[in-house]
Amino acid sequence: MKIPVYVPDIQPAPGSPKESYLKPGERFDDLQLQGYEIIQNPDGFCFGMDAVLLSSFIQIKPGEQVIDLCTGTGILPVLMAAKMQPSHIYGLDIQEYSIDMSCRSVLYNGLCHKISFIHGDIKDAGKLFGTGIYDVITCNPPYMTAEHGRQNETTPKAVARHEVLCTLEDVVRESARLLKANGRFYMVHRPFRLPEIFDTMRRYKLEPKTMQLVYPFVNKEPNMVLIEGRKSGKPRLKNLPPIIVYDTPGVYTDQILEIYHMKTMEDED
Amino acid sequence: MKIPVYVPDIQPAPGSPKESYLKPGERFDDLQLQGYEIIQNPDGFCFGMDAVLLSSFIQIKPGEQVIDLCTGTGILPVLMAAKMQPSHIYGLDIQEYSIDMSCRSVLYNGLCHKISFIHGDIKDAGKLFGTGIYDVITCNPPYMTAEHGRQNETTPKAVARHEVLCTLEDVVRESARLLKANGRFYMVHRPFRLPEIFDTMRRYKLEPKTMQLVYPFVNKEPNMVLIEGRKSGKPRLKNLPPIIVYDTPGVYTDQILEIYHMKTMEDED
Repeated sequence: MKIPVYVPDIQPAPGSPKESYLKPGERFDDLQLQGYEIIQNPDGFCFGMDAVLLSSFIQIKPGEQVIDLCTGTGILPVLMAAKMQPSHIYGLDIQEYSIDMSCRSVLYNGLCHKISFIHGDIKDAGKLFGTGIYDVITCNPPYMTAEHGRQNETTPKAVARHEVLCTLEDVVRESARLLKANGRFYMVHRPFRLPEIFDTMRRYKLEPKTMQLVYPFVNKEPNMVLIEGRKSGKPRLKNLPPIIVYDTPGVYTDQILEIYHMKTMEDED
Repeated sequence: MKIPVYVPDIQPAPGSPKESYLKPGERFDDLQLQGYEIIQNPDGFCFGMDAVLLSSFIQIKPGEQVIDLCTGTGILPVLMAAKMQPSHIYGLDIQEYSIDMSCRSVLYNGLCHKISFIHGDIKDAGKLFGTGIYDVITCNPPYMTAEHGRQNETTPKAVARHEVLCTLEDVVRESARLLKANGRFYMVHRPFRLPEIFDTMRRYKLEPKTMQLVYPFVNKEPNMVLIEGRKSGKPRLKNLPPIIVYDTPGVYTDQILEIYHMKTMEDED
């Protein structure tokens, strides 16, 4: 299987000045994790806490092959490569500019041996990657149905947020095709779509196995759900303890500080 | 429609001594709510916090007609009649002894004008009650599939806990039949069965509309889920803030004390 890896037009040699990796309007954003930084364009869609929480929820065993669908600016592959030991991570996105930025981020961070990006449509994922051979599929997809947004809008932000070019069903169907037997699927989504998410996953034989709700405060409604599915898994859902983001407005809980590795051993005393 | 209401063999006149309502081995348990007490037999299945939390989750508008399936010792009808203004509540259970106790509890509490009990099989609910005419169906069903328990066991506790005589599908299917258009279905269940619960509800056109997870501690896995469905409702699930039961072992949170009405105005200061 020859996977059509994207090659960016800018490829600075190792040790080149930071600015040489950037195109106009872009900047480096610090991931607060082992010195990694990724390139983002503040005019486009930038990663949020959902990607960071998803990367902590995902469990990859050493040597596993991973595909990240709807990869955007490649935040999730970089976080996964930094935290775990996959054999290789492929990131797919339909937006060429996102893939171009992702490639330059990975080049800058020296992760090219671990991460590759592919520019393409999720509906062609089987053709691009081959089916039934991957251990793990991850996805931080557009959360909102197309009708929640302005119809036919295809700005980069709209495509990343709304199901204009990629629906929940596309994500689940293609993930099920790419995964090997017993392979795992990890996704972050909005809790208001949970019944539809479970239905769709079960329809494509991705049994929901783990979920965790994220509550901004202990007395507020959850605004994210982390989900693990298993291809042809047996039905039984493990519900993890809640993630509570803030103790008081602007003050993260210890749980979040630990996830962000911002809590040092000293703080523990 | 003539509903075959159960008539217990013991029917003490108003003002009779408390003991005259009891059969051997039974006792009154205080609901800590407006002086209501219900009869239970400690050798059988006794109500737990799940019934109390479900009664707080349920919203009945004045004048609505309610059926409580798998009513057991009638705890939920008594709590609902105490807290809200339904027109009438019918409780159904397949265990005659439970229904007999429920009737005597309601007699003792002076709630016969509000609550009636029917001894029968949930699979006959349509025949017993008539279909498509109820506003609200409530249920605290057996949580465990039959194979989780010892096969063929039909002790009162086994029947109340395991799906020996009544499955999740029975509950959902019959609730959907009994409800009028836009009628509401309220249930408490175990979170590990959530995908199956949502699937089954949607299959019978009871769209999941609200859910709330109950966590014993803020850092523990949830052990209960409260669910509201709406007959032929539009898909969109509202997720409520978490219910956290204990602050520290044995010490209820303020949230639970409020639900149990054990927090007085004085405590608020």
